[in-house]
Amino acid sequence: MAKEIGVTVKRSEDFSEWYTQVVLKSGLADYASIKGFMVLKPYGYEIWERIRQVLDEEFKALGHRNAYFPTLIPESFLKREAEHFKGFTPEVFWVTKTGDDELSERLAVRPTSETIIYDSYSRWIQSWRDLPLLINVWNSVLRAEIKSTKPFIRSSEFLWQEGHTAHETREEADKEVMEILNVYRKLIEDYLAIPVLAGYKSDAEKFVGALYTTTLEAMMPDGKALQMGTSHNLGQNFSKPFEIKFLGRDEKEHYAWTTSWGVSWRLIGAVVMVHGDDKGLILPPKIAPLQAVIIPIFYSEKDKDRVLAKAKKVKEALEKENVRCMVDDRFQYTPGWKFNDWELKGVPLRVEVGPRDVDEGVVTVARRDLKGKKTVGDMEAPSYVKKTLEEIQNNLFQKASTMLKEKTITVKEYGEFKSILEEKGGFLKACWCGSPICEEKIKEETGATIRLIPFDEKPFSQCLYCEREATKVAYFAKAY
Amino acid sequence: MAKEIGVTVKRSEDFSEWYTQVVLKSGLADYASIKGFMVLKPYGYEIWERIRQVLDEEFKALGHRNAYFPTLIPESFLKREAEHFKGFTPEVFWVTKTGDDELSERLAVRPTSETIIYDSYSRWIQSWRDLPLLINVWNSVLRAEIKSTKPFIRSSEFLWQEGHTAHETREEADKEVMEILNVYRKLIEDYLAIPVLAGYKSDAEKFVGALYTTTLEAMMPDGKALQMGTSHNLGQNFSKPFEIKFLGRDEKEHYAWTTSWGVSWRLIGAVVMVHGDDKGLILPPKIAPLQAVIIPIFYSEKDKDRVLAKAKKVKEALEKENVRCMVDDRFQYTPGWKFNDWELKGVPLRVEVGPRDVDEGVVTVARRDLKGKKTVGDMEAPSYVKKTLEEIQNNLFQKASTMLKEKTITVKEYGEFKSILEEKGGFLKACWCGSPICEEKIKEETGATIRLIPFDEKPFSQCLYCEREATKVAYFAKAY
Repeated sequence: MAKEIGVTVKRSEDFSEWYTQVVLKSGLADYASIKGFMVLKPYGYEIWERIRQVLDEEFKALGHRNAYFPTLIPESFLKREAEHFKGFTPEVFWVTKTGDDELSERLAVRPTSETIIYDSYSRWIQSWRDLPLLINVWNSVLRAEIKSTKPFIRSSEFLWQEGHTAHETREEADKEVMEILNVYRKLIEDYLAIPVLAGYKSDAEKFVGALYTTTLEAMMPDGKALQMGTSHNLGQNFSKPFEIKFLGRDEKEHYAWTTSWGVSWRLIGAVVMVHGDDKGLILPPKIAPLQAVIIPIFYSEKDKDRVLAKAKKVKEALEKENVRCMVDDRFQYTPGWKFNDWELKGVPLRVEVGPRDVDEGVVTVARRDLKGKKTVGDMEAPSYVKKTLEEIQNNLFQKASTMLKEKTITVKEYGEFKSILEEKGGFLKACWCGSPICEEKIKEETGATIRLIPFDEKPFSQCLYCEREATKVAYFAKAY
Repeated sequence: MAKEIGVTVKRSEDFSEWYTQVVLKSGLADYASIKGFMVLKPYGYEIWERIRQVLDEEFKALGHRNAYFPTLIPESFLKREAEHFKGFTPEVFWVTKTGDDELSERLAVRPTSETIIYDSYSRWIQSWRDLPLLINVWNSVLRAEIKSTKPFIRSSEFLWQEGHTAHETREEADKEVMEILNVYRKLIEDYLAIPVLAGYKSDAEKFVGALYTTTLEAMMPDGKALQMGTSHNLGQNFSKPFEIKFLGRDEKEHYAWTTSWGVSWRLIGAVVMVHGDDKGLILPPKIAPLQAVIIPIFYSEKDKDRVLAKAKKVKEALEKENVRCMVDDRFQYTPGWKFNDWELKGVPLRVEVGPRDVDEGVVTVARRDLKGKKTVGDMEAPSYVKKTLEEIQNNLFQKASTMLKEKTITVKEYGEFKSILEEKGGFLKACWCGSPICEEKIKEETGATIRLIPFDEKPFSQCLYCEREATKVAYFAKAY
């Protein structure tokens, strides 16, 4: 029974199977009955709500406002920017009928909203006084996954936010792109406790239709990179076909500069992979729905009342310190079963209250991220818990940073590149001539793609592949 | 110019055109380029965020948790409950292709999620210990509108929440249905300042597949009723075809009792209709994105600085009282233009700061809901504003209550029923034998439907239509 409930494979032995078991068994998500789709269960949704809250406040502080645009997008809109359309064609879910009526033009179920939003912007923007227009949308998008799906990481529908802004000048759009990348970095590093590398995408890897794409990339324990969020300067690539024009301060007509940017529930998948262990999830306290669980332990009716009474008092004391906690008083389960259950769910702290703890005026505290327990006096318990939650948050980030460092290797030579990639994966930092041919060859021969081109690094050797002069530093990796 | 910006028809002369102009010109919403769809603009979305926040807190306080389920629903799911499927058939947007591939089974773009959610519940619910299962979803649903569309009231996609709960017994499901109806009533009356009538729907008007539907109905100034929210006991009508079974406390297998309930962005439309006037929107302070706007007034450079400095001080003082406010310092517009603009947008209070106000240590306050201005000393301004916002909230509710009372008429005779309905509309309270034939005849002959059957009222006369013994009291009205 316990075996069935817990994770049955070790993370080090079958990472993929371990990941799927943790996601499903911890109650974050479930498969839906339609292939490629998943259900975000309440426990996972609560994490998404915290991510949303952090980002929403940051976006609003920078002057963005939320809105909502239609789920369905006419094919003609998508086609207006040719490269963009090509990029999404194989993934689009097409609505062709309402009721029994055939539609005169088929409608795409939103794979991303640039085109339908820009159709509105073309009417809303007339003058430079209407700019910048800073709008964000919380919705879901659908992209048919033909490859095998993976909860949070690769599914045919995902929850995300998509920001869409319009500006007077390229410089303002550039600034917006970087500001948002920094908002994302703050969320991912400070809240999700996952260190990231930041940089540009290569032209082959950028968003379809973008002038350029910036990205944040994290390293997973299996040596594969995960794209955490992207922020694009779309230049005037969309404003021209969609005619987003404005009368400038110079009394002349100009095309707006637009940006778009997004992060998705994929971030939850990253949290699972980066912090989890063989027992299951480990959630960073700042985004954990539950930060501490209080387990009453008793073996006689005599002890039951006084143990439960104390457990409730502990809860009240912790809540005064704004710790999100609950007493697990499910009588049908043993304390041992509950320990396993909450470890699987990744609750950062467990507080045990037994008869002896009542007698001695203490509680026993166990950290999810470290072994061992500690006995703490009742009076100091709330501040100890508070302080320990901060330590857990920091420890998770430190551990992930160490992992990122260990899995980032600078290479100058293609043979070495291939053998490291084969043996342990990770980020391989190398120099590149900038030619899409070398990039494509490396991808073909090794499966590694350029994950990012760091913002300010100078080449330190020749091109990894062609050995001609390098123009750029690039981080290569196999990726999810 | 001013004419173009403001509302160009009187509410009393062309209610429908007035409504559409207010919605579009105040910046709540816009038409999308696809027929039947609309865009919720930031100003409208901020009202939706407040509605969501109020409901979300109430739902959670009652033990509900949020989740997310797929946008696409296999046709076979919808078909499993025959009546339900029939109810949505003509309205469904059908996905038949992904990319170039024909799907083996077509997928409905979510018209409501009972079926796909219950598919999951059938796997999640095994024992009575898994019950009640109390889940809510914030999403959008699509129903193709063949009739003419109206922003917020009738569009092919709308934002809403849908709650879906499963219970051990019918009694528990009954209790859930009523608890939610009360949450809705609290939102609508206390926050939106709109009084509602509560009751059951007749079988002809209930949700397709429900055992029974409860509803809240409001009266609009044009004499038509608007359904504000519904809460359904679905009985075992869905749990049987979807096999939501559980092992009961009696060790036997039972089918769960399920409920579903929802309110949509239609509530914003009701706010526009009920409170608005010839100048535009009037927003109840509790849900207004902006509760007070501060307008600096000056006609010389000399006055500009001191007026602006004071306006900022007023803003800070109001914000200390948690009043949502801003200084409108757009220099390209005159004060008069701004007055009109914020009146159109329905901001509850306007605070004017001119040179004389600076000299005299006062501000001038104008209420959106009443004529006239009042001069208030700087020191007392924040508490005056705070108190006045409460008065506005109450005044709007009182005015709407008076309107509801005036437009609710008790009738015993069908001739009188028809003439009142024709002349002034409103709720017509009458007695009914309970036969769907009388109900259908009345609808055919007058266009009025039974909006609700009040929970606890005894018949006071014979059936309005057939004049046989009445079994029920019913509120009839023409409806949106």
